[in-house]
Amino acid sequence: MANKVREDRRQFLHKAGLGGALTGLVSSISLPVWAGAEKLELPDALPKWMKVPGEEFSNYGQPSEHEQQVIRWISANSAAPGNGVSWTPLHDLQGTITPNGLHYERHHNGVPQIDPAQHTLLIDGLVEQPLSFDLKSLLRYPMQSRTCFIECGGNSNSGWRTNPIQTQAGYAHGLVSNAEWTGIPVKLLLQEAGIKPNAKWVIAEGADAAALNISIPLDKLLDDALLALYQNGERLRPENGYPLRLVLPGWEGILNVKWLRQLRLTDEPLMSRDETAQYTELQPDGKARQFTFLMEAKSLITSPSLGMMLQDNPGTYQISGLAWSGRGKITRVEISADGGDTWVDAELQTPILSKAFTRFNLPWHWQGDYAILQSRATDETGYVQPTREALVENRGRHGFFHYNAIVSWEITEEGDINHVYGF
Amino acid sequence: MANKVREDRRQFLHKAGLGGALTGLVSSISLPVWAGAEKLELPDALPKWMKVPGEEFSNYGQPSEHEQQVIRWISANSAAPGNGVSWTPLHDLQGTITPNGLHYERHHNGVPQIDPAQHTLLIDGLVEQPLSFDLKSLLRYPMQSRTCFIECGGNSNSGWRTNPIQTQAGYAHGLVSNAEWTGIPVKLLLQEAGIKPNAKWVIAEGADAAALNISIPLDKLLDDALLALYQNGERLRPENGYPLRLVLPGWEGILNVKWLRQLRLTDEPLMSRDETAQYTELQPDGKARQFTFLMEAKSLITSPSLGMMLQDNPGTYQISGLAWSGRGKITRVEISADGGDTWVDAELQTPILSKAFTRFNLPWHWQGDYAILQSRATDETGYVQPTREALVENRGRHGFFHYNAIVSWEITEEGDINHVYGF
Repeated sequence: MANKVREDRRQFLHKAGLGGALTGLVSSISLPVWAGAEKLELPDALPKWMKVPGEEFSNYGQPSEHEQQVIRWISANSAAPGNGVSWTPLHDLQGTITPNGLHYERHHNGVPQIDPAQHTLLIDGLVEQPLSFDLKSLLRYPMQSRTCFIECGGNSNSGWRTNPIQTQAGYAHGLVSNAEWTGIPVKLLLQEAGIKPNAKWVIAEGADAAALNISIPLDKLLDDALLALYQNGERLRPENGYPLRLVLPGWEGILNVKWLRQLRLTDEPLMSRDETAQYTELQPDGKARQFTFLMEAKSLITSPSLGMMLQDNPGTYQISGLAWSGRGKITRVEISADGGDTWVDAELQTPILSKAFTRFNLPWHWQGDYAILQSRATDETGYVQPTREALVENRGRHGFFHYNAIVSWEITEEGDINHVYGF
Repeated sequence: MANKVREDRRQFLHKAGLGGALTGLVSSISLPVWAGAEKLELPDALPKWMKVPGEEFSNYGQPSEHEQQVIRWISANSAAPGNGVSWTPLHDLQGTITPNGLHYERHHNGVPQIDPAQHTLLIDGLVEQPLSFDLKSLLRYPMQSRTCFIECGGNSNSGWRTNPIQTQAGYAHGLVSNAEWTGIPVKLLLQEAGIKPNAKWVIAEGADAAALNISIPLDKLLDDALLALYQNGERLRPENGYPLRLVLPGWEGILNVKWLRQLRLTDEPLMSRDETAQYTELQPDGKARQFTFLMEAKSLITSPSLGMMLQDNPGTYQISGLAWSGRGKITRVEISADGGDTWVDAELQTPILSKAFTRFNLPWHWQGDYAILQSRATDETGYVQPTREALVENRGRHGFFHYNAIVSWEITEEGDINHVYGF
């Protein structure tokens, strides 16, 4: 079925003259006229806000009232309103940092209101000496900063559905955000407790009403894991784990346990609900994948994307989006305007950081023709983001988690944008 | 007078045995016992927030109610409440990003409440073709991101006073913040208008009630200037220029004109109020320095710092702070615990970005002795942050702007922290 649709599209694109060099993608910025500049003199009348004193200073600033539509979109269980998600509006953002107010949420039983003076972290199990840390003592430990993405294992899971969801980019793919996390290397705390030789796993538990717990290989905690206390400079937000969160760069969101209260070292995994009944992937052969920690390379064109319009006039547009990989650095993002027949390398914004959002950009001269826009990410291990066809062939359609296929935006001749499959 | 104080301190330090290797500074993290971990078992009782469902999702998140003391400190003119500053609480922050709610403010007549649909940017003067841009058209232009600090020329100006101000680090030095700005290279817009050969300066004007205007050399706008629309991923905050701000990496804050409405190309500077009566520096010879655009290298220990206490127990503490330079990258930060007699290199957090905050860290074994903590930054041009003595000798005490001397924190034997001069 997908092949049939694909063939139809290809014929359409061919008829529309969209082959190779005719797609309008250009690999460098010379000096196009970025249509839209009007040739006007300064108006005589000053705007009204220049005629009255402005607003006073504020202790803690908020977005403009004209940006009130830029929100996390909440999708929660009406019977249990603390169970669900809220999506980062990636389609409204630029650059690579996700501001703290818009970092995605995934809660299993709501956001606990923790008094930091009463919160402790216990390290126990297969250790020489169990240790308990309060916030006052943790704030004395050496800290490091790491800018990285955190992505829910269930991000983009509408992609497994039969029909392409017609939702704005962030509200289908925005269970991923990128922040500068600052905290204590977990390795330092574990070494202080003393790791027994038979310890292989760590059971992390949060202080929420779900008492969310999950098993993590000890090696990851000894590698690049942080006990985060700060998010983009300030203390963690309540919905992102205040006062303590485990940050495991490049690994599935649920492992980045929020409101962390305990790390118990063990010789085997716990087989908790969220690593058996949930966060596993049913395969075509009827078996389920388990412990799929790594988030593979992925990319998404955020502009232009569904919900925007090409302003009913052909001309030059900037294609812009985000790419990321749990394996390391993004090395390449390619763009196609003809549904994958031809590709042009996008420019990658620097610095390119490992396991973090990388912004890509490419100018596009849109002539008012039908087009299919796609982006395809490659990471430093050589992993290439798959097409939806390849992903579904490999994993079936009931995996629910870890969907990272190429996303296709259909541009109509009227400048409307739709989400399509088949490319 | 300063020399006298300095000599007294030196004698005191000498008597206290604080010479060279005895200062407790260590240049690498091995495995000290970071005093404070208690040896406890998990308490039987669950905290109350694990026994009730948590709070629901939110469209736009806010800091924890337990962090309400982490605010911008407002210092405004009571007769004109939109004239003044608010300070970033650097002493409460970690990492390098300043969250948008805490980015410092400097307003001359308050924050204009601009309707972006009615805002335009005019480029005129010595151009081939004056151009006016609305937001809709600007959003189609190619954008770049740049993480950089913006610092008010008047930051740290209490340092010129006779006596050391006893204020928390951010409330004396926090008219500087660091963010990821995303916008259009100004060069692209100027080239579209066409630059006439005799254009040398650009007069930038804001759409606030002060109609703040200032002269900027054209070369800077053709170098690395951005017309910023986004700040840490989201659209600019009103107090930071919504919807348009000029960002001139490494240059004095006032030149980063907020609420930008006009760029007029000229052959000479305007000699506006804010580049003649203000933002100039009276020199010892009675003449004033003018057009002092560049912000020189500077550093500040944010922890431990005034207002904190060393928790009445000796042991290992993490010295942490920020360094930055308008000339480029920070290459070195040295720490002294003995008032400048001996120095140890701090570890610099990576990635080190040009004209951006660099976080430095160094462990310190405090034995309960009297100490003077200092940090000294060096940038990639070889420029070294001066002592207060050297700065005052060179510039006099009436310059008011561009104070970047080494800051000295006195640690008493009781663990109190004071701001002192003379080192």
